[in-house]
Amino acid sequence: MKVSGRWRRAIELADDGRSVIVLDQARLPYEIAWLPVGELAHAVRAIRHMHIRGAPLIGATAAYGVALAMRADPSDAGLAAACAALCDTRPTAINLRWAVGTMRAALDGMAPEAREAAAFAAAGKLCDDDAAQCEAIGRHGVAVIRAAAERAGDRPVSVLTHCNAGWLATVDWGTALAPIYKAYEDGIPVHVWVDETRPRNQGLLTAWELAQHGVPHTVIADNQGGHLMQRGEVDLCIVGTDRTTRNGDVCNKIGTYLKALAAHDNGVAFYAAVPSPSIDWTIGEPHEIPIEERDGDEVRRVTGRDAHGAPATVEIVPAATAVANAAFDVTPRRLVTGLITERGVTPATRDGLRALFPEHAGAPTP
Amino acid sequence: MKVSGRWRRAIELADDGRSVIVLDQARLPYEIAWLPVGELAHAVRAIRHMHIRGAPLIGATAAYGVALAMRADPSDAGLAAACAALCDTRPTAINLRWAVGTMRAALDGMAPEAREAAAFAAAGKLCDDDAAQCEAIGRHGVAVIRAAAERAGDRPVSVLTHCNAGWLATVDWGTALAPIYKAYEDGIPVHVWVDETRPRNQGLLTAWELAQHGVPHTVIADNQGGHLMQRGEVDLCIVGTDRTTRNGDVCNKIGTYLKALAAHDNGVAFYAAVPSPSIDWTIGEPHEIPIEERDGDEVRRVTGRDAHGAPATVEIVPAATAVANAAFDVTPRRLVTGLITERGVTPATRDGLRALFPEHAGAPTP
Repeated sequence: MKVSGRWRRAIELADDGRSVIVLDQARLPYEIAWLPVGELAHAVRAIRHMHIRGAPLIGATAAYGVALAMRADPSDAGLAAACAALCDTRPTAINLRWAVGTMRAALDGMAPEAREAAAFAAAGKLCDDDAAQCEAIGRHGVAVIRAAAERAGDRPVSVLTHCNAGWLATVDWGTALAPIYKAYEDGIPVHVWVDETRPRNQGLLTAWELAQHGVPHTVIADNQGGHLMQRGEVDLCIVGTDRTTRNGDVCNKIGTYLKALAAHDNGVAFYAAVPSPSIDWTIGEPHEIPIEERDGDEVRRVTGRDAHGAPATVEIVPAATAVANAAFDVTPRRLVTGLITERGVTPATRDGLRALFPEHAGAPTP
Repeated sequence: MKVSGRWRRAIELADDGRSVIVLDQARLPYEIAWLPVGELAHAVRAIRHMHIRGAPLIGATAAYGVALAMRADPSDAGLAAACAALCDTRPTAINLRWAVGTMRAALDGMAPEAREAAAFAAAGKLCDDDAAQCEAIGRHGVAVIRAAAERAGDRPVSVLTHCNAGWLATVDWGTALAPIYKAYEDGIPVHVWVDETRPRNQGLLTAWELAQHGVPHTVIADNQGGHLMQRGEVDLCIVGTDRTTRNGDVCNKIGTYLKALAAHDNGVAFYAAVPSPSIDWTIGEPHEIPIEERDGDEVRRVTGRDAHGAPATVEIVPAATAVANAAFDVTPRRLVTGLITERGVTPATRDGLRALFPEHAGAPTP
């Protein structure tokens, strides 16, 4: 998608073809900086400290992390250690484990001297597949937006989203935002309510993305969404997911559940955009998903620009004050209108997901 | 309540007995500063720009605003103009209109030369009544906390609150926090989940208040509360109100509705602390309550401390980006377990409120 008018991906091979660069999301939207990821440790750090974030992009970065590790040590032990280090970075996003598993499966039986080239090829394919999945989610999801736009009549269709599930959270296109970009390209008048998404304010990444593309949007505090839905000012919600159970429960950024409750209470459709690598076929119920508790400093500090326009951080909660900071919550499937996958839109049910992904029909029941 | 160990009120007569001082909440918790309010214009500015906030304290400050106006111009025209200017400051909190109406009723038929002394006396009585109402809310509400504490067993009882409905929002004691202070004084092990309450972060005022008194608490982003309730970590919610309909619908700080939805979804009791001046007997339904839309800069900017500990503000959303900033939402009565008033606890129903306040039995039906 576009950065300063030029089409980029959130993760790219560097010009040398042997390392990668990622758009540093710890500095966005206040600075546009590309972070070199030249070895396994860089990938581990970029994921853990959220220089990159978003479940699909975490997976893509982890895949390149394995490839970079294979350059340094392509032995079986090197492969095992790289996979373990990457899986240890963040507990909730299932795409991380899926991507590492995919890479391992591609490399496991292979001679060490062949692993580097094969790993870079596999990581590149994984990124291309991710972009293609997101593009397909956009194509399927635009029908949902078009239907809501027809109901909205003369006014623009308003979509509420939480966190950032745009192209910054993926390789390209995004998940929740892909249908919005497609709608915008198709000439559907669309407006986006952008939840700020404390504590890390990923909504500001969403606003930045949308502004780069010219999509109309309004930033709101996380507290606003319910009121807007009560007033009929939200036509539908679309969010991303870090892990979705095989029965359709959607784990996503903390606060998503509150918006799903408000949507349900006001008859507003609530969709999650779910690329298949975000589905955990081994898990059936919400409580089985591990929820990451992150550093309280994320709550205590807020970054923006100072009076001179330079990036600056203020402390709003003193270090002595206790804070809690669970990074995700789970929206139970009963509150989810539908899941937008790369193969089409389905109700948030086991049967619906299995119909789209019959290769997983053997997953445990229920 | 306590400021640096000394018992204070949020609004006090100055030593000269002829003007008032208020604790400047636009600077708290980063600076403790008392703001002199020496004439009507100061009171208008303090209310509009939220140097003071909280429905009961807005009412108390408006009452003293009328008194200060009577010193400058005690004519009928002066009284009418003062009342109009004060009522024009903020649209949602009904206590403002109630306090101005109370002052006007006390002064209307009176000779101008008697008005100044009578107005100061009436404002002083209104403040004393407010403190007494809040203290009574604390006495009635502590029973609700005690019951929850008994269910909680060995662990502390956890109360979630939104915004600041503590003594900083009133003259003394607070509304939602009064039962918590009483519980703490009674030796009930209590812990408070403090919603940050974007965009103005009044939760940090709540955390400051609680810290001054030694009440254990944890600050959370507004997005956390639903997840905590799903995990069984919230025993009950208590919030304040800016206006409650005669049928029990609770208008309060934006985001309250989302927490009420989560409480309802998880079987967590949800109470509002409602002093009778916060009840609007003329209004029966949520949509009748005017909702204040405030300046978008409240969303765009965040104030905290810089690296040197000095108050500092950062801009997180560029001025060119659209923001929306409704200051309140309405929690429908079906989501409210009970209302804690100065006369006791009642279900959020017309019959319940009328039984406690039979003098309003003539209010319109339904």
